[in-house]
Amino acid sequence: MELTIEDLDHLARGAAFLGAGGGGDPYLGSLLARHAIERHGPPRVIALDELADDEAVYPIAIMGAPTVFIEKLVGGPEVALAIEKLEEFTGRKAAAILPAEAGGFNSLLPVKLAATRQQPVVDADGMGRAFPEVQMVTFNVYGIPASPLVIANEFGEFNIISARDARSAEGMARLLTIQMGGGVAVTGYPMTGADAKRTAIPGTLTLALEIGRAIARGRRSGEPFEALQDCLCGAPHHRTCRILFEGKICDVLRETTQGFAIGRCRIRGSGQDGELEVTFQNENLVARLGNETRAIVPDLICILDRESAEPLTTEALRYGQRVRVVGVSVPPIMKTPEALAVFGPRAFGIEENFRPIESLS
Amino acid sequence: MELTIEDLDHLARGAAFLGAGGGGDPYLGSLLARHAIERHGPPRVIALDELADDEAVYPIAIMGAPTVFIEKLVGGPEVALAIEKLEEFTGRKAAAILPAEAGGFNSLLPVKLAATRQQPVVDADGMGRAFPEVQMVTFNVYGIPASPLVIANEFGEFNIISARDARSAEGMARLLTIQMGGGVAVTGYPMTGADAKRTAIPGTLTLALEIGRAIARGRRSGEPFEALQDCLCGAPHHRTCRILFEGKICDVLRETTQGFAIGRCRIRGSGQDGELEVTFQNENLVARLGNETRAIVPDLICILDRESAEPLTTEALRYGQRVRVVGVSVPPIMKTPEALAVFGPRAFGIEENFRPIESLS
Repeated sequence: MELTIEDLDHLARGAAFLGAGGGGDPYLGSLLARHAIERHGPPRVIALDELADDEAVYPIAIMGAPTVFIEKLVGGPEVALAIEKLEEFTGRKAAAILPAEAGGFNSLLPVKLAATRQQPVVDADGMGRAFPEVQMVTFNVYGIPASPLVIANEFGEFNIISARDARSAEGMARLLTIQMGGGVAVTGYPMTGADAKRTAIPGTLTLALEIGRAIARGRRSGEPFEALQDCLCGAPHHRTCRILFEGKICDVLRETTQGFAIGRCRIRGSGQDGELEVTFQNENLVARLGNETRAIVPDLICILDRESAEPLTTEALRYGQRVRVVGVSVPPIMKTPEALAVFGPRAFGIEENFRPIESLS
Repeated sequence: MELTIEDLDHLARGAAFLGAGGGGDPYLGSLLARHAIERHGPPRVIALDELADDEAVYPIAIMGAPTVFIEKLVGGPEVALAIEKLEEFTGRKAAAILPAEAGGFNSLLPVKLAATRQQPVVDADGMGRAFPEVQMVTFNVYGIPASPLVIANEFGEFNIISARDARSAEGMARLLTIQMGGGVAVTGYPMTGADAKRTAIPGTLTLALEIGRAIARGRRSGEPFEALQDCLCGAPHHRTCRILFEGKICDVLRETTQGFAIGRCRIRGSGQDGELEVTFQNENLVARLGNETRAIVPDLICILDRESAEPLTTEALRYGQRVRVVGVSVPPIMKTPEALAVFGPRAFGIEENFRPIESLS
């Protein structure tokens, strides 16, 4: 499959939905990929099983606080620099580009890089959504070392990190991200095609594209939420997609701290009682109605515009927005005990066990 | 010249004197070098002009807060790891080991490394004393790029830093130092023999050895301070060496913060009025009697035991110690406008211009 310019807005919107509040701005992501495709032609999207087992493949993303990316454009020459330095250090050229996470920016960035490098982009990623930290990828959960990991910024500065484990790599990379300007290109977890087949989450790009197309189709018929639900029910692993709450944002507390956008959003119900509180660290982590948890990480919590079903990233939340909050289940590979140890609620300091959205009222 | 085991205590003590309160513990430094020489034989000490112009030479040091090194032994396998990774990255093996700074630990560490690698150690360094930050070396002042710069810790973790300038390298390396355990091996400023001849401070190791021997000789005759002064007056650049104050330490404020040991020491005069206050950031920076500056960085401020003239590092200062404070001038290469911009008073946030000790009362 080739990605065309017509696909980009759908891909960006669907990826922003999967980003669960994180993963960066879809408009900027779409512009970035469009510019690259206009210059270099559309990249080929390949499935995981099209990778040769012994090919090298490197995941790529932008790391940092999304609040920073509003003021500072990321995704420029630092992206190519990061992957080139990783290639020099490992001595192996990447045969394909693998998105590290799903997000309005971070799903489009690999498309740009693939187009520029005239290489395929792999229809997969390491989260099936967005997460804020380096160790929070299925690559790590299923045994791929994070190091060497390269981060680079727009001044041509870079760091090659060799850490004893992914948690330690996160510790170093986070401090460097802050020091290097709050948003940097990151690539690490150098792996083979065989590794990717074993550890990556398949189909993330095509799922994002389907979601984006469903929202567009639904808008034309005036029912974008129904179209979204239909699309997710028909997706692999029969995703549960539930509207958790509807109301008006009455309070946003958001701080750019420790290299993240951390905070919470309160939504006052319309046509229903109470207030839903959604807490986030770049991505939405838990949605609670009073004391009652309605959805919790790694299940997706997505805040969408009430009319258009436009996904709202956490840095774009504003007082007065009318929204619907949607919860979506994630594939089984993300709910194993090993996976929950890395990106379940307690990995974010939430004193609560994961309960799948299907089991919550 | 070959360094023998008998030289080590003298070298360590003299280097601790030049360390001006920093540069690490001479006892640990001496033990470290002794162990290496017992196993591998004594390393050859070569003068700068014995380096071939096109040979590669890499400066080495331990970086961090000296208060940390009391509790955590540094100078182990991370030192060889750091230099090996720099060699791999640059593609050039070091032909000789260059001390980055003078200090009780940091002058002996290169001796250990040289012995272990069966290479010469260069009788020179980048400070002629100790300074706390990566950019504070004559290599930087006179145009050698700090990057690539490698830091490594005892867990086999390392970082290869490529920064746009030495100040930025310091910013990244300092955060990583804290994150990686508070004390790490650092090597950077990869240079040629020609570069070293142009930018390094010559004769630091032999000067340290002479100072250490003079103190030992003076102790036997009961006059270690006189011996010290005689030695420094006869040293290259006719060093001014002045006893600034004598008294009892009546207060030490010391905090391990931002990756440094930062604080001040107050000394109550014996046989003279007033209190001398010495402020430090790893190294002693300024000595003031009331409002009157008696010596200021980059001139050396050394706090010594009143009887034995044993140099006291800032992390070893204790209430009740009887001390003499000595000020020593530094070579002209360290007092040019370019040099003072990098390690003069204002580079440490001291709102005062440098005045050489000769011009102070």
